[in-house]
Amino acid sequence: MKKEKPNILVVNDDGIDAPGIRALIGVMKTLGKVVVVAPDGPQSGMGHAITIAKPLRLDKVNIYPDVEMYKTSGTPADCVKLAVNQVFKGRKPDLCVSGINHGLNHSINVIYSGTMSAAVEGAIESIPSIGYSYDDFTYDADFSQCLPWVKKTAELVLEHGLPIGTLLNVNFPKVTTIKGIKICRQANAKYAEEFDERQDPHNRNYYWLTGKFQANDNGEDTDVWALDHHFASVVPVQFDLTAHHAITILNSWKFN
Amino acid sequence: MKKEKPNILVVNDDGIDAPGIRALIGVMKTLGKVVVVAPDGPQSGMGHAITIAKPLRLDKVNIYPDVEMYKTSGTPADCVKLAVNQVFKGRKPDLCVSGINHGLNHSINVIYSGTMSAAVEGAIESIPSIGYSYDDFTYDADFSQCLPWVKKTAELVLEHGLPIGTLLNVNFPKVTTIKGIKICRQANAKYAEEFDERQDPHNRNYYWLTGKFQANDNGEDTDVWALDHHFASVVPVQFDLTAHHAITILNSWKFN
Repeated sequence: MKKEKPNILVVNDDGIDAPGIRALIGVMKTLGKVVVVAPDGPQSGMGHAITIAKPLRLDKVNIYPDVEMYKTSGTPADCVKLAVNQVFKGRKPDLCVSGINHGLNHSINVIYSGTMSAAVEGAIESIPSIGYSYDDFTYDADFSQCLPWVKKTAELVLEHGLPIGTLLNVNFPKVTTIKGIKICRQANAKYAEEFDERQDPHNRNYYWLTGKFQANDNGEDTDVWALDHHFASVVPVQFDLTAHHAITILNSWKFN
Repeated sequence: MKKEKPNILVVNDDGIDAPGIRALIGVMKTLGKVVVVAPDGPQSGMGHAITIAKPLRLDKVNIYPDVEMYKTSGTPADCVKLAVNQVFKGRKPDLCVSGINHGLNHSINVIYSGTMSAAVEGAIESIPSIGYSYDDFTYDADFSQCLPWVKKTAELVLEHGLPIGTLLNVNFPKVTTIKGIKICRQANAKYAEEFDERQDPHNRNYYWLTGKFQANDNGEDTDVWALDHHFASVVPVQFDLTAHHAITILNSWKFN
């Protein structure tokens, strides 16, 4: 670990007043100098949205003592861009942590998750980055059991760095005892969406997105398996989306 | 190719009235039965955002003759979910095409792009899916030169299908003659963001996201190289974000 105190950027998608980010800030204060840049309201399901068609606000706030904090009108990915450019002004934080999300972001959820997109944006900026999520959607979620594992994973990343172009997706089960950490791959899963169709008072239809999670993957090396068996899952994630294995196949097609 | 006319879902992120989707609909009508589900306004930069905190509208519209069309208040990814569930009602379209985007979505842009996220959502739904983008941001972009290549790529995907878990990201250069198609990997690139800081009439700061594209990759197998050399680029994309190569490294760390 560096001799100087590491600079740690804390972001999230549930908003600056969420208990999950308070828990994360608490752990990070024991590891380094913390700067928080978080959305001014909930941004769940924002995926990797960025704000290009309207201007952004970035305002200093004073919520927790001894912590430099800013709230923004932007998305989770915007938070990281604003932090790097307007707060750190070109210096790189030594670590970017996102969360702790109220609700899991395992398997396919990584692609819809604002929490993970903020961590992905950190990785794109070449900052060692970790997203944390806990299996409790409620505002009153009790994160205390996650905290030793948050500290452990952050310490290890500060010590080792991460392979180029990768970040970590860490999920915690809601169980009496977390058994430990499993390094996993993302389970193959999807949502069987259903839309709840309703009528407004003017007789026009509207729809609420709902859906059942469907894991089609019995591998014991997946994040879904680890969480089901009371382990915290750690999945290394990459932002190069090229399906390299498909290139050879496509090269045999008659495109030209 | 199937003997029955294939069912083709057309989506985009620039909105249902964009010239790019009109061009795409024109080509798809020559290949099959077209259904359009598109946002009611621009959704660029929405990444893989989905709408979970508010209800969605889905309304039938009548813009082009002989084409079943719906506009929604949702994101590009929402369009695909709504199409599959509320319009196709569980039948799978044979092809999902997204675009043609006004502006390129090569290299790192795939992660920010609503156009590509709609195509990714199609692939998650096990529909062979393609995103199309053209190097002209303007409303008056002339897509005519892209159209033979749009047709060719769609025909090939209808004929061969795509490897499981993959989709295609197709980008067209703005040049006098497109030389042909190159199968590529996504170039390693990022944006050097800058925020344009301004003051509102009440003396509060606000920020516009701007930034310069920086390709740090001279590979002749990249989409950036292909486009620079007047080829249309075809990158196979995957939605499993696991960095499989990093698992062995992480397994050597002392997590437990």
